[in-house]
Amino acid sequence: MQGQPAKKEAEAGRTGPLDELSAVLDSDMRQVNARILKCMESDVALIPRLARYLIAAGGKRIRPLLTLAGASIYNAPMEKVWPLAAAVEFIHTATLLHDDVVDESAERRGQKAANMIFGNKASVLVGDFLFSKSFQLMVESDSLEILGILADAAAVIAQGEVKQLTTANNIETPLAAYMDVIESKTAALFAASCQIGPVLTQAGQEQSMAMRNYGMKIGNAFQIVDDILDYSADPQKWGKDIGDDFKEGKMTAPVIFALESADEVERSFWRRTVGDKIISEGDFEAALDLINRHNGLQKSAELAKAQIVEAKESLALAPTHPMRATLLELADFVIQRAN
Amino acid sequence: MQGQPAKKEAEAGRTGPLDELSAVLDSDMRQVNARILKCMESDVALIPRLARYLIAAGGKRIRPLLTLAGASIYNAPMEKVWPLAAAVEFIHTATLLHDDVVDESAERRGQKAANMIFGNKASVLVGDFLFSKSFQLMVESDSLEILGILADAAAVIAQGEVKQLTTANNIETPLAAYMDVIESKTAALFAASCQIGPVLTQAGQEQSMAMRNYGMKIGNAFQIVDDILDYSADPQKWGKDIGDDFKEGKMTAPVIFALESADEVERSFWRRTVGDKIISEGDFEAALDLINRHNGLQKSAELAKAQIVEAKESLALAPTHPMRATLLELADFVIQRAN
Repeated sequence: MQGQPAKKEAEAGRTGPLDELSAVLDSDMRQVNARILKCMESDVALIPRLARYLIAAGGKRIRPLLTLAGASIYNAPMEKVWPLAAAVEFIHTATLLHDDVVDESAERRGQKAANMIFGNKASVLVGDFLFSKSFQLMVESDSLEILGILADAAAVIAQGEVKQLTTANNIETPLAAYMDVIESKTAALFAASCQIGPVLTQAGQEQSMAMRNYGMKIGNAFQIVDDILDYSADPQKWGKDIGDDFKEGKMTAPVIFALESADEVERSFWRRTVGDKIISEGDFEAALDLINRHNGLQKSAELAKAQIVEAKESLALAPTHPMRATLLELADFVIQRAN
Repeated sequence: MQGQPAKKEAEAGRTGPLDELSAVLDSDMRQVNARILKCMESDVALIPRLARYLIAAGGKRIRPLLTLAGASIYNAPMEKVWPLAAAVEFIHTATLLHDDVVDESAERRGQKAANMIFGNKASVLVGDFLFSKSFQLMVESDSLEILGILADAAAVIAQGEVKQLTTANNIETPLAAYMDVIESKTAALFAASCQIGPVLTQAGQEQSMAMRNYGMKIGNAFQIVDDILDYSADPQKWGKDIGDDFKEGKMTAPVIFALESADEVERSFWRRTVGDKIISEGDFEAALDLINRHNGLQKSAELAKAQIVEAKESLALAPTHPMRATLLELADFVIQRAN
């Protein structure tokens, strides 16, 4: 679930470098938030109601913070960055709304999903509204190049979500297909966010790609950790019910690693549950056992850590700046959540 | 239903001025179609499959034709117009996909709705993909001003669809609220399409507004006629089942006019059927009787005609050009469908 990371984080109370970013970038974030609130206005009352519900609940705003932090490193003109940081958050929020709708099991997740409160129709349409607003915000920033980057990211996200549809319930899904899905559905927007600073300041292709790669890799790690937490989070600590991915038959890293070492009996278990969605009581616990038997969570954490190593290598190419140090810490923080 | 006009038209075989536009603009439309096909490409097979299904079935492409025709009047550089005409069609197609999903009764319409064949999830996500692609196409055209106009139109469309949600099943809906809904959900994109030519060529505010207004008014008429046909079309002639709007409780012009003159017994009929969606056999025929008793279709047609008068007045402000003559004919043609 792409929708979960921000929520989990917000409720985790373990947000060290993110809190630091929020504090340092406080006056910029006020500008971003003002734009977010303004763009949610509409004479159709349902729109601000639904948008506010979602955005108010919306965690730490990691994507706008990355956008602002990246831009700070390159001394970008911040008044051009504010609308872009808001646009990035809107793309994310629109995706969340649509993800809730398209996900058949969203209705089982309890009262929290927006579509349960406002209806599927409203979620699709308000998502479209926010998505359109994000492009209006981009126009404000006056950079067609950035607009192209964010339009590309939006297309890649949608493609990633469709890819995820086609891998769900398919226990033959290889790790490479999983990586492809998360890079598209989650990491592409992190990458675009981080790339905005160097592109706006015309810092050159190498800088732009370094920051893009940093965003991509922490985005990958972020999603892998999220997928680990779906099989391991302490509901008390993270405020989240675990097991959603299992019920939905999502092919995520822990399951893929368990399947790699599975014998025939185990494969038939995965085929019935994740493949055919025939799930009885105790199956989730059995799944956890199988994942642990084959070190599925540990291997997933290793996968995330490797992404973080690459992220930090890329970031080292960026100019020295206090914000760069914070982003390096943030990279480590992303995988700490998994422990 | 916003989705219906193009389909009806395609199947109507009465497309005089549209056929003429298609013929005159044939080489430009080839360029537009090439861009449409290219943008549907994806290594995720479901995307081109679903997009092709919808776009292949997609009627006469009135919106790209309006874009090209408007641009021709102003001698706009057509290589900049092609991607914009494709973008307009993609915005429309994305809206159709989402409209099918959000519409609860879409599943009752038989096998034709995309979401019945490919699933709701796929329709939302492929809609998002096409929407993102439309912005990629706009970036190609290199005009932030046009990008702003189309982003505005997209936001207004989403807002209009939400407005429609809030008026559905409300028999107190006044005609003004209906006009507001159709102007947003349908006419705004016609308006933006027609405005592209004068804006690209910097023909000035008066020209831009004149063309915008022409598009807005024919868009309004187009939708009113569509709503009339939902209570009057000959299925043999138009290839469409009538009565969908009635079943869905949409508050369209024919019903609003019937309600304006309704006595208490009639109001209670509308309250039960359109208001509470409690519909029994024979109710649609009874609704038709009530609409005819109060000249609901005739009054709706008058409403559409008034829009066309305004459309033609606006278009008269545009430069003299053979294409202008065709667009004048097109205005008359839009309301001929209702007869």
